[in-house]
Amino acid sequence: MLTLIYLVAISAEAMSGALAAGRRNMDLFGVSLIAFVTALGGGTVRDILLGNYPVTWTQHPAYIYLTISAGLLTLLVARFIHRLYRLFLLVDALGLVAFTIIGCNVALSLGYSTVVVIMSAVITGIFGGILRDILCHRTPQVLRRELYACVSLVVALAYLGLNALQVSETITLSLAFAVGISLRLAALRWGWSLPVFSYPAGRWGH
Amino acid sequence: MLTLIYLVAISAEAMSGALAAGRRNMDLFGVSLIAFVTALGGGTVRDILLGNYPVTWTQHPAYIYLTISAGLLTLLVARFIHRLYRLFLLVDALGLVAFTIIGCNVALSLGYSTVVVIMSAVITGIFGGILRDILCHRTPQVLRRELYACVSLVVALAYLGLNALQVSETITLSLAFAVGISLRLAALRWGWSLPVFSYPAGRWGH
Amino acid sequence: MLTLIYLVAISAEAMSGALAAGRRNMDLFGVSLIAFVTALGGGTVRDILLGNYPVTWTQHPAYIYLTISAGLLTLLVARFIHRLYRLFLLVDALGLVAFTIIGCNVALSLGYSTVVVIMSAVITGIFGGILRDILCHRTPQVLRRELYACVSLVVALAYLGLNALQVSETITLSLAFAVGISLRLAALRWGWSLPVFSYPAGRWGH
Repeated sequence: MLTLIYLVAISAEAMSGALAAGRRNMDLFGVSLIAFVTALGGGTVRDILLGNYPVTWTQHPAYIYLTISAGLLTLLVARFIHRLYRLFLLVDALGLVAFTIIGCNVALSLGYSTVVVIMSAVITGIFGGILRDILCHRTPQVLRRELYACVSLVVALAYLGLNALQVSETITLSLAFAVGISLRLAALRWGWSLPVFSYPAGRWGH
Repeated sequence: MLTLIYLVAISAEAMSGALAAGRRNMDLFGVSLIAFVTALGGGTVRDILLGNYPVTWTQHPAYIYLTISAGLLTLLVARFIHRLYRLFLLVDALGLVAFTIIGCNVALSLGYSTVVVIMSAVITGIFGGILRDILCHRTPQVLRRELYACVSLVVALAYLGLNALQVSETITLSLAFAVGISLRLAALRWGWSLPVFSYPAGRWGH
Repeated sequence: MLTLIYLVAISAEAMSGALAAGRRNMDLFGVSLIAFVTALGGGTVRDILLGNYPVTWTQHPAYIYLTISAGLLTLLVARFIHRLYRLFLLVDALGLVAFTIIGCNVALSLGYSTVVVIMSAVITGIFGGILRDILCHRTPQVLRRELYACVSLVVALAYLGLNALQVSETITLSLAFAVGISLRLAALRWGWSLPVFSYPAGRWGH
């Protein structure tokens, strides 16, 4: 079930990458690469930081085909894609939760301490989007928009807390998805966001 | 022979990095660092993704000296370098093919599946240029110019195909270079490029 | 002693990251992440390049708490922080030297050759700042400002030279800090910098 959600989620992330590439007038190759990086980059950064070799996607060629296909498919449907906006946001929220839980499980299985498990979860959740924005030459959006990274953090805490309480895996997963998706959609609906820190540019610092 | 081409190629890539650094008014240190990253960054990203430790350049100090020297030399010849434009494009094409083939061989020797071998080839070919553009704060050029990444892909497919047909190594290498360089120079000559995907900026997506 | 300086230094680097995030109007999460990356990113890049697993901060949760706390604390004191400008520059210089020496020691303990040890030292010293600037979407400052990366290089050479002469560790460390801090503060005081390479934008290169 988590795998199925994961496959849907990486396809959605790949499409978000393709759209960002389209805003920079990239060619088919750039679209494919950025779709791939957006979908699988978060897990790749996690695997490298944790020394989790071989990197996940190198053992699952299907992930590579799926994300590149989803990226290229985006070109065909770009004209109509705005009609799917709400569906996209739902799938994106699903993906954020799925990535987060997978990030927890990978770090747990390698025996890292709790705070590293939480970092692993959030990195898996958000670094695909950060790499997408770096490659597309814009300021990372996930660091200043409606609750996004924060949803990943809350889901990780909920998941670890429920695990510690020995709640069954099914209930834990259900609750984690319920909490994460509700929080994300509520943040989008009512424009919730974390306080923003604005510091004027000047001579100070570097 | 491949090693010799490789050494010429990393020098040329280092010079391209130095010129990009010069456009950002970087100091001698910045020029050296970006020369190094442009020349050896593709192989480094590949080694890290594939878990191919130790990373190649850490075992070949000569590569470090060569790329930094080439970067600094660029400052002395920058005034005349536009006269070498055609030569530079040829060496750059040579390098793209050499990097691609080396990327194939590294992934093959580690036993990765075919699609990962192709990714490894293309990553080795183009990521130096992508890292150069990120460090120089501009949109990655290789993702939207004349056939470039695409040449790497074609060379990787040709190389693997000829290997599978058990063609001798000498003929395989010769054909791979012939195909890659012809395709790249033809693309430059006649302005061939992949279709570009343009998607207007708007509220959609993130 | 080196550890104490290191802890002070990563806190200062975290604050510099938080200020940079504030200039991009990032939210609390973005501030925390960039504080963390600025402080610990240099060591992380070094660990990944040298295959020094597990990555240092994954074994020291205190580093994670300290850098994120320092980043968030910056929001509270941002209003008064310009009064601490000189203190900050001193701590930043201390940190640059400490990072450099730690980078030397990690590479030496893994048996890398001298030039790789120097690269490891400089990467540890400057890559936190480079990653900060990439995440904050601006041209890396350390590659074009007053002597900064260069100080790291000089300290690494001095440290290795004194080690080779079998000078006692205490004297070596004292001299390395004296040289590094003097050079950095003198560069700031009198505006010393490396020659800058300016190359006009044009059709050449890519």
